[in-house]
Amino acid sequence: MPGNAVGWGKREMLEGNRVGILVEEGFEDSELVEVARAMSDAGAVVVTIGSGSFSTYRGLRGKVRAKVDVSAQDIRADQLDAVVIVGGYAADKMRLHQAVVDLVKEVQASGKVLGAIGHGPQLLISAGVVKGKRVTSWPSIAVDLANAGAIWADEPVVQDGNLVTAGKPSDLPRFNKAVIDALRKRAVRV
Amino acid sequence: MPGNAVGWGKREMLEGNRVGILVEEGFEDSELVEVARAMSDAGAVVVTIGSGSFSTYRGLRGKVRAKVDVSAQDIRADQLDAVVIVGGYAADKMRLHQAVVDLVKEVQASGKVLGAIGHGPQLLISAGVVKGKRVTSWPSIAVDLANAGAIWADEPVVQDGNLVTAGKPSDLPRFNKAVIDALRKRAVRV
Repeated sequence: MPGNAVGWGKREMLEGNRVGILVEEGFEDSELVEVARAMSDAGAVVVTIGSGSFSTYRGLRGKVRAKVDVSAQDIRADQLDAVVIVGGYAADKMRLHQAVVDLVKEVQASGKVLGAIGHGPQLLISAGVVKGKRVTSWPSIAVDLANAGAIWADEPVVQDGNLVTAGKPSDLPRFNKAVIDALRKRAVRV
Repeated sequence: MPGNAVGWGKREMLEGNRVGILVEEGFEDSELVEVARAMSDAGAVVVTIGSGSFSTYRGLRGKVRAKVDVSAQDIRADQLDAVVIVGGYAADKMRLHQAVVDLVKEVQASGKVLGAIGHGPQLLISAGVVKGKRVTSWPSIAVDLANAGAIWADEPVVQDGNLVTAGKPSDLPRFNKAVIDALRKRAVRV
């Protein structure tokens, strides 16, 4: 039943969508795994996007290794429907790579879905895309987001237009749902 | 030869000074070790100050464990001559502990020597002490310092009054010298 959201099976929800997940050394293991699984289960093609520094990365908890599908410099926002920035200490490393920063800028400028969780919003600051936006994050960087002009909210998941943010791994189910909903609304609108 | 800096032995340089080093999980191993050694070699009493979360912390590289001498809530700025914030991911954790943030505020307000290296300046942002100050840091947080009103300089070590900052472990010799010099100038002034 295409076009009828109510009747869709779970796997058809994001069929035809490509979701990029940004990775670097020290990502929050559960965030990468659960975002990738949720998007894949909903029918999206998941692409891991690296900074260019290495071809595989280790998670902060030592539980997961992530293989990079493509480097940030080799993909453009128009090849993706959403980009998700996972947390841990990966964003701290990603913000030093201009190709990653530029990709995030492009995604925001094109109105595609942009998600960030935990420390992921550090990369949003470097991309200069949070001014005047309602966001949340891991609390240690709340002051940095406020100083960058964001309106920081102490809520599990915050959505401001195409921008979806969340604070910590236990918010993953709500975060994934919000990203999926934003992608589906975008598909309907386009 | 008290009062004559030229004639002092190395160990007499900081005699009578107490230097607090702030620690939390994930500190940059070499920064803690080398700052503690330099201050101790110069004759200062070194005190490790924890956030209160645990009594020992592990370094980011797994090379060093640090035992906490005192919790931030149990020491005041007037019991110290300098406070040094080491880097790694310790500052990201410390900025969530109000007693640590308050101690840094007090140290700055009292004009005592305040040093920070690597990611350490994240805690300076949380303490609200960088506005209008010339600082440096690990480059990933340069944008956060600029957004907080600091004047970020791409230099190995930057001194602005009592505030001494540096970017990375290889800057440690110059950073330690600048902290020691600032303490000695302070001693002469008082």
